[in-house]
Amino acid sequence: MAGKKVLIVYAHQEPKSFNGSLKKVAVDELSRQGCAITVSDLYAMDFEPRATRKDVIGALSNPELFNYGMEAYEAFKKRSLASDITDEQKKVQEADLVIFQFPLYWFSMPAILKGWMDRVLCQGFAFDIPGFYDSGFLKDKLALVSLTTGGTAEMYSRSGVSGDFRYFLWPLQHGALHFCGFKVLAPQISFAPEIASEEERKAMVTSWAQRLRTIWEEEPIDCSPPWYFGQ
Amino acid sequence: MAGKKVLIVYAHQEPKSFNGSLKKVAVDELSRQGCAITVSDLYAMDFEPRATRKDVIGALSNPELFNYGMEAYEAFKKRSLASDITDEQKKVQEADLVIFQFPLYWFSMPAILKGWMDRVLCQGFAFDIPGFYDSGFLKDKLALVSLTTGGTAEMYSRSGVSGDFRYFLWPLQHGALHFCGFKVLAPQISFAPEIASEEERKAMVTSWAQRLRTIWEEEPIDCSPPWYFGQ
Repeated sequence: MAGKKVLIVYAHQEPKSFNGSLKKVAVDELSRQGCAITVSDLYAMDFEPRATRKDVIGALSNPELFNYGMEAYEAFKKRSLASDITDEQKKVQEADLVIFQFPLYWFSMPAILKGWMDRVLCQGFAFDIPGFYDSGFLKDKLALVSLTTGGTAEMYSRSGVSGDFRYFLWPLQHGALHFCGFKVLAPQISFAPEIASEEERKAMVTSWAQRLRTIWEEEPIDCSPPWYFGQ
Repeated sequence: MAGKKVLIVYAHQEPKSFNGSLKKVAVDELSRQGCAITVSDLYAMDFEPRATRKDVIGALSNPELFNYGMEAYEAFKKRSLASDITDEQKKVQEADLVIFQFPLYWFSMPAILKGWMDRVLCQGFAFDIPGFYDSGFLKDKLALVSLTTGGTAEMYSRSGVSGDFRYFLWPLQHGALHFCGFKVLAPQISFAPEIASEEERKAMVTSWAQRLRTIWEEEPIDCSPPWYFGQ
């Protein structure tokens, strides 16, 4: 939709990969709509995943006992966070929709993207206590997880060997995104592109591009536990 | 138990932290038993969390289209993985029990520990296809997750705002550890040490040390979905 701002946080090493194709069609389709798009290409940026003392410029609040969460909170308030963090926070702040594009590593995000979550979504910026879940600070924004898996859809079904795919989405969609207030759109899961035919891969890319045509009409999903686990 | 080998993969920046205390009493108690203990202190090692081309020494199998999982698998077979990965693999290979000690970051591991999982537990070393879950290559080893939370036990209950703590353990215990064959012992969760009294903190540390006295008598938990979600 013209005028909307989209941030794509992208975590794949290879531009010619299937994840790269999904990122590319998202940029193309959203540009065509007149959206302003920013891509954080984490591997290309060599984004730092480790949460360390280096994230605070200048003196610590309590150098005797380093507490990352507390120091990041204080540094956010004093505007003394490292610039790679504040650069990402600015992108998030400006976005109406944040899309996370990545391959599933161990039922979760690749470490480089986990590090983005750990460092960018700090207390004071994304939430406070109180000020989380439905009152998280990013509550006027949408988030969408677009991921690829190694296993097939059947493996990620309730009776499959890897369990319902919603199980592995829980920490990410509820624990991180919903905690920060994001309204979460349905995940886009491209199952097992590596063992799919070229035709099937193309169909998955097309289906993502097609979904994006009407993405601004979608309603968020409910992230609360009873629904989530079908109870 | 005398003669047993234990690897502690430890992810906290501050030795004087509560996580540091839990790590220390584990080293003390297991040493007292006559175990041989190795600690991978990830922040002190400045462990690399990013899964990149640098993890493969020499030529790639397919330089035209970089596929991390495939290249790591080939490099494992050709013994051309980066030495920080093979050093950790050697420690895992020798261990009877691997303990992961960390603070919960976004319902999951800190990125530095996620990177250890992403890079160390590669195909060929930890699993193959076929050769995963109950037939994963680390099936003669025990694993135990010992973590601290920000939220209280009540928040991490089934009716709590953050849901049953077993929800967030799923990707880690089933998706990563069980996938590699590990027999998983019950998690050790120290809830909300930051808001606990000094006395309560001491009690949590003592309770962990006491549990370790009889750790070799424990039976693994069942990681399969129906039990896991109480269905």
